[in-house]
Amino acid sequence: MTRIGYLGPPGTFTEEALLTQSDLASADLVPLPSVGDVLSAAGSGQVDLGFVPIENSIEGTQTTTLDALVFEHDLFIQREVVISVHMQLVGPAGLEVGRVQRVLAFPFAENQCRRFLAERLPHAEIVPAHSNAEAAQRLAEEAGGSGGGVPDTAAVSTALAAELYGLTVIESDIEDHPDNSTRFVAVAASGIPAPTGHDRTSIACFQKSDHPGSLHGILGQFSARSINLTNLQSRPTKKALGDYCFIIDLEGHVGDEVVADCLRDLHASLKDVKFLGSYPAAGHHGPAIRREVQEAWRSADVWVADLRSQIRP
Amino acid sequence: MTRIGYLGPPGTFTEEALLTQSDLASADLVPLPSVGDVLSAAGSGQVDLGFVPIENSIEGTQTTTLDALVFEHDLFIQREVVISVHMQLVGPAGLEVGRVQRVLAFPFAENQCRRFLAERLPHAEIVPAHSNAEAAQRLAEEAGGSGGGVPDTAAVSTALAAELYGLTVIESDIEDHPDNSTRFVAVAASGIPAPTGHDRTSIACFQKSDHPGSLHGILGQFSARSINLTNLQSRPTKKALGDYCFIIDLEGHVGDEVVADCLRDLHASLKDVKFLGSYPAAGHHGPAIRREVQEAWRSADVWVADLRSQIRP
Amino acid sequence: MTRIGYLGPPGTFTEEALLTQSDLASADLVPLPSVGDVLSAAGSGQVDLGFVPIENSIEGTQTTTLDALVFEHDLFIQREVVISVHMQLVGPAGLEVGRVQRVLAFPFAENQCRRFLAERLPHAEIVPAHSNAEAAQRLAEEAGGSGGGVPDTAAVSTALAAELYGLTVIESDIEDHPDNSTRFVAVAASGIPAPTGHDRTSIACFQKSDHPGSLHGILGQFSARSINLTNLQSRPTKKALGDYCFIIDLEGHVGDEVVADCLRDLHASLKDVKFLGSYPAAGHHGPAIRREVQEAWRSADVWVADLRSQIRP
Amino acid sequence: MTRIGYLGPPGTFTEEALLTQSDLASADLVPLPSVGDVLSAAGSGQVDLGFVPIENSIEGTQTTTLDALVFEHDLFIQREVVISVHMQLVGPAGLEVGRVQRVLAFPFAENQCRRFLAERLPHAEIVPAHSNAEAAQRLAEEAGGSGGGVPDTAAVSTALAAELYGLTVIESDIEDHPDNSTRFVAVAASGIPAPTGHDRTSIACFQKSDHPGSLHGILGQFSARSINLTNLQSRPTKKALGDYCFIIDLEGHVGDEVVADCLRDLHASLKDVKFLGSYPAAGHHGPAIRREVQEAWRSADVWVADLRSQIRP
Repeated sequence: MTRIGYLGPPGTFTEEALLTQSDLASADLVPLPSVGDVLSAAGSGQVDLGFVPIENSIEGTQTTTLDALVFEHDLFIQREVVISVHMQLVGPAGLEVGRVQRVLAFPFAENQCRRFLAERLPHAEIVPAHSNAEAAQRLAEEAGGSGGGVPDTAAVSTALAAELYGLTVIESDIEDHPDNSTRFVAVAASGIPAPTGHDRTSIACFQKSDHPGSLHGILGQFSARSINLTNLQSRPTKKALGDYCFIIDLEGHVGDEVVADCLRDLHASLKDVKFLGSYPAAGHHGPAIRREVQEAWRSADVWVADLRSQIRP
Repeated sequence: MTRIGYLGPPGTFTEEALLTQSDLASADLVPLPSVGDVLSAAGSGQVDLGFVPIENSIEGTQTTTLDALVFEHDLFIQREVVISVHMQLVGPAGLEVGRVQRVLAFPFAENQCRRFLAERLPHAEIVPAHSNAEAAQRLAEEAGGSGGGVPDTAAVSTALAAELYGLTVIESDIEDHPDNSTRFVAVAASGIPAPTGHDRTSIACFQKSDHPGSLHGILGQFSARSINLTNLQSRPTKKALGDYCFIIDLEGHVGDEVVADCLRDLHASLKDVKFLGSYPAAGHHGPAIRREVQEAWRSADVWVADLRSQIRP
Repeated sequence: MTRIGYLGPPGTFTEEALLTQSDLASADLVPLPSVGDVLSAAGSGQVDLGFVPIENSIEGTQTTTLDALVFEHDLFIQREVVISVHMQLVGPAGLEVGRVQRVLAFPFAENQCRRFLAERLPHAEIVPAHSNAEAAQRLAEEAGGSGGGVPDTAAVSTALAAELYGLTVIESDIEDHPDNSTRFVAVAASGIPAPTGHDRTSIACFQKSDHPGSLHGILGQFSARSINLTNLQSRPTKKALGDYCFIIDLEGHVGDEVVADCLRDLHASLKDVKFLGSYPAAGHHGPAIRREVQEAWRSADVWVADLRSQIRP
Repeated sequence: MTRIGYLGPPGTFTEEALLTQSDLASADLVPLPSVGDVLSAAGSGQVDLGFVPIENSIEGTQTTTLDALVFEHDLFIQREVVISVHMQLVGPAGLEVGRVQRVLAFPFAENQCRRFLAERLPHAEIVPAHSNAEAAQRLAEEAGGSGGGVPDTAAVSTALAAELYGLTVIESDIEDHPDNSTRFVAVAASGIPAPTGHDRTSIACFQKSDHPGSLHGILGQFSARSINLTNLQSRPTKKALGDYCFIIDLEGHVGDEVVADCLRDLHASLKDVKFLGSYPAAGHHGPAIRREVQEAWRSADVWVADLRSQIRP
């Protein structure tokens, strides 16, 4: 049975995202305490797949995951999952907002619901929790052991955790920014998913030296081939002050000729290029343009091959 | 007296960073509960200066601050401060590591010290706190009220908080990544510091449409003028899926002709450019190159002016 | 009275082109024997204006004139004139094509009319002349001194020369490539014509060293500002093998802010830029785009000026 | 026996250049009257090889040859030959400069020796000839038929023509610009010479439309691959006013992976690319850089191939 390690504990947004994938939901799901632990488990084969938040997350920052993938592990992204992130005020059945005196909350989640808490629960004590899931879990334990007294404690948590720990949602979608979404990736030690015609490729580019314009040259490679970038970030390499690498998401798959060709040129001209994966893109971008570009590239390939066949031995 | 709002509570790394600035340390320091609160206070004039973490922080993510500066406020960065971030295990005088049974910790800090906690305190209960500073503060309260019993609780916190709350450092620099540093910025509603010859400028570039190569064109403007970039990030604008802006730090000051000239061209060719500030650069980069570039630019300016003086009326 | 030196002798295409300019036609026209002589006369002030072919000419190559303007003289182009070039078979009144036994022709013109001569006059002897005009002039002298005998000699020449020397056009437009046109320039030692909103600027760019991509950088300056190029040529500098300069015609006038700005950046980043002139463009290109670009540039200029006014002293 | 058509008549610089090639010198050399005739003969197979001046020639302009190769014929350049061009004052044995009264000269050569003629033979009559070779040939005929009288006529011609027609060189290297050199090419209807590690490739690039920056994009392809350009020219396509193509010489051979790769991308992104040939470069440029670039490209190719082998079926 496929084993999937994910950033736990059960009931986090990461598990919520994982459960949206029907083919993964039935696997053996293993909660692990940190992004680093998940990536290590995937690298060592302890799990077949690791599942972690990578961008704009409420449970952690993209920087941690991204830096770990770029600098510490050798893993290929297999899939990306993007979900809307909604915070819930959860509590024991019967508890109403007006009676809440204490709120258990992961500090990050507290931060995301600052406005709701200030307006609706200005006098409630906010008690920190380890994670969104733990807030619900602890609340369920407290409520269970409250001996019939009137419970006045709620938690900020996820819909999944409420279900998991037998709580009800008192107020839903209480986050300040309702259109918040988080991107998760599934990673494995080897293997690249076959192209679907609707893929994304992630790479990290290490330049030869920090001279002005080197990024300009890197981007020229994409622009020269009409390859769309969907994300770009400079990150310090931690080797020397002012030494940067560039982490780039682009539309297309290493199996596409035009992308392979671009990666080849980047690799030939840079100090290093780390391949982070080619995988089906979430969302609805890119395939049409890509097909046309491929077409032109193929006819160019025939042209060059024909020329080269005329070279005298 | 100058009022400075900062991301509180007292004892955080943000306050530590603020106190490294001798001219700011003696101001009226106002702790505020969130980055958004600090930026709003600076925007409304409630404080003269706001002070917040912006990059790679242990107390929050750069994304929050950066997005707020770009999309929600109109503030100019006045100064940047970069400090090394070190976590401390603190406790009441006399407590030794071997006897610690409980540890109060801000979940983010717990994350940063995962290895130390696993190796040295594998059996200790980790109790979440709201912030690094609150962990120390709460510990001091508990210890104060412990009535002579033997205290066995420590906290993960900052050196400043230990001092503030009368605790001692039991183990210092317990973070997993010792070379972690955080960048903070001071922002104000108006005014740009005079050029020092050693400055950084931050801008956000909004492209006309998401066509491939637009970032390539933007970077061409810097590369054409030998202007070094020290940071670059694409960020979704939240207006439409796939609509990105680029947040760029560059070496130089809007008061430098060559930078002004570059900003002018960017502004003329893009949908919008938001100016986030020109301010003295932390660290030791840039001034030599800059001078030479300025020199060449000035002589070019004389050349063009001389040509234009020959235009017949 | 204005003195204009031009590439003689009288009756050449150069004079034809000069006479299309009503304000120049009435000046004191001085035929000179070579392009070098015309440029020297203009440089020394011996004439107020020099008039020479510069591109695709039938009387000489652009290379000679272009190289002389770039490497040997310091002159500004004042005007360009583009005319269609048509060759005429001319002869004494009454001479018919069928009876022509000899044809006087400047070798270059002979080259241009190769097909006509082969098809219509396959048996005629071709006698070389010094220039198109001299062919007509010599024919007129021969015919005048022929003592009543039946003339059987024609000349390949210009319509102007036929008129000048009392000859008639026997066959008109006998050139192989009917859509041939030649570009002429008027040059002076100083002064730049005022912008008309429909101008061209010519420059020569000398790069710092022959490293790959330097031209790419040069063109980036134009492309970054949406400035159209209408001509571009690499030319060896004759200083060292492989040392090139680039001669560029662009749309716009040094009096336009966006062009001045571009020239400034080129001058600041290259070894040298030689300004060859800003002058009204022949033909119907460019003004609309230019206006829009100017608009954007001006609003950008206001933006930068406003920012800079906020710099603290 | 190999037949080689060349721009005649015998004794021209073109023949001089041809005879520097030991393997071609013994072929069946066929003088033809024009560049167009040579190219047509090569295209139709009437000759195996055509040999014509292409750049900076004294007998014609590069533009003619270049335009013919680009727009009218489908030929591949097989070889380039660059020779220094020196003009000679030639005459019958015994004639001294002081006694020369008439000089036969091809007008182009007259132009090249203007200074010598003005200073040393200010009173001599200049009589135009069809070509450098014909000047010598005609002089030899005149001298042969002069019936013992004292000859006072010289010719401006080539050393080869002097030898061919039994004349002596009276004054050697009389050209104004002593470092003048001309480039010739040998062209054939098919076949590309094998790479030598020291090659040049010539192409013509046709852009999709005349939008600013298209050349910038084209050059980005070379610059992105560290491919040196040795010549570049914009040429009007004669299809529409303002419709240009770019004729480019670059270092390397279509058989080099990095060049093939570049041509493929150009072909895929442009309206058309015409391949004019890959052939051994005259002179001493390029091979070292090329090898290193090839090396990097090959290792990049292995990297991409390895990645692609991991794609799941």
